[in-house]
Amino acid sequence: MRLNAGLIFMSDTRTNAGVDNISRFRKMFTWEEPGERVITVLTAGNLATSQAVISLLDERTKAPKERRPSLLEAPTMFQVANIIGDTLKEVIKTQKMTGPESEADYGATMIVGGQITGIEPRLFMVYPEGNFIEASEETPFFQIGETKYGRPILLRAYDPDMSFEEAVKLLYVSFDSTLKANLSVGMPLDLQVVETGTMQVGHRRRVEDDDPYFQTVSSSWGDALKLAFKSLPDFTFGPDDQA
Amino acid sequence: MRLNAGLIFMSDTRTNAGVDNISRFRKMFTWEEPGERVITVLTAGNLATSQAVISLLDERTKAPKERRPSLLEAPTMFQVANIIGDTLKEVIKTQKMTGPESEADYGATMIVGGQITGIEPRLFMVYPEGNFIEASEETPFFQIGETKYGRPILLRAYDPDMSFEEAVKLLYVSFDSTLKANLSVGMPLDLQVVETGTMQVGHRRRVEDDDPYFQTVSSSWGDALKLAFKSLPDFTFGPDDQA
Repeated sequence: MRLNAGLIFMSDTRTNAGVDNISRFRKMFTWEEPGERVITVLTAGNLATSQAVISLLDERTKAPKERRPSLLEAPTMFQVANIIGDTLKEVIKTQKMTGPESEADYGATMIVGGQITGIEPRLFMVYPEGNFIEASEETPFFQIGETKYGRPILLRAYDPDMSFEEAVKLLYVSFDSTLKANLSVGMPLDLQVVETGTMQVGHRRRVEDDDPYFQTVSSSWGDALKLAFKSLPDFTFGPDDQA
Repeated sequence: MRLNAGLIFMSDTRTNAGVDNISRFRKMFTWEEPGERVITVLTAGNLATSQAVISLLDERTKAPKERRPSLLEAPTMFQVANIIGDTLKEVIKTQKMTGPESEADYGATMIVGGQITGIEPRLFMVYPEGNFIEASEETPFFQIGETKYGRPILLRAYDPDMSFEEAVKLLYVSFDSTLKANLSVGMPLDLQVVETGTMQVGHRRRVEDDDPYFQTVSSSWGDALKLAFKSLPDFTFGPDDQA
């Protein structure tokens, strides 16, 4: 999510190959040269694809002289998104071309955000095809994976002027709606803040099941929604409503 | 939706074959013998399939002596659901077997609810395979079609003791969340109430774009949600949240 104050990211940690086969994997990855650049990537979709992409990107940053292009050398966030898109596309293509015939969907989608010194923070969504779009004032946040349950509250309550603290509250509410409806999304959550101009990760937190503030939000949101619902004007049937 | 007071149904009217090809069709159908039985069917999925099923069911009710089984002669709502499931399954099978090879999805899903004199009101969801499930105290409502955006508020605010008027408000809020997020769902809406014991349609309404109460709900819900959101306790980062 893009705010005037900077970028904020949240991801869950559940992956599944059917409801009888769930695991916990991190879906948030960060590369930083503190003070110079910070790059965060969130992943959704095929886990093998996501991990291959992240590993390839990571290897290149560790021996950048021999292995290019490196995220740590790209001059702009646009180039970073380009590198990630190319890597993602290549991994998917290789899986499809070299593996046995399979019904498996090797696709993955990624959110890429960060800042490189001298340029504004930027936020992209990268498609399995390797191309990408950028967040804007009209569309200031991206969701990947199971997006629908949590979307209405984002559409209604997002404000670019909100503080990181308010944004955490909003993301908790949004994730809580999804967690309550879909088993493919599960705790714990990963949270990360990148304040504009710092070129490094600010706050970060792993939000466990027993996180007291998350529990408070989750339980109070039900009551708050019910109150909001009751506050709406009452409906009455009119004479035209008869059968 | 199943309430202690009876059944309430809502459907939209948009169908599409791509965003450049949208139309308006009714998706709510009713058969009644006032005082003896009332049966309401909601449809989602392939429009040709839905219309064929509804037409077949309807024809049989008009010449029940010659054409069986008829919805108006079935002794229980369970048998009604059975007839609808069988008809649906047959229509889909015929389309698939007799048509040219096609990527088209001929599937459709239906919600069937109503009451036959002497028996409690019952509510079913019928799958394209022809089998079905029944609503219960644990799962007192069904959604078909684009279900996700509107689900969180239903999960949070539903109460079996609510009045029909409160249920209308809830369904408006739920549909409004979906309408705001997905072009495949569109106004006007159809609304219908079946009060337990009456064996006939009570209130019914076509809710147009300019319906004043719907507009009020739609605009106040955004503000109510924002207030609810603000009412949640504030988040603060702790010392453990540093990078």
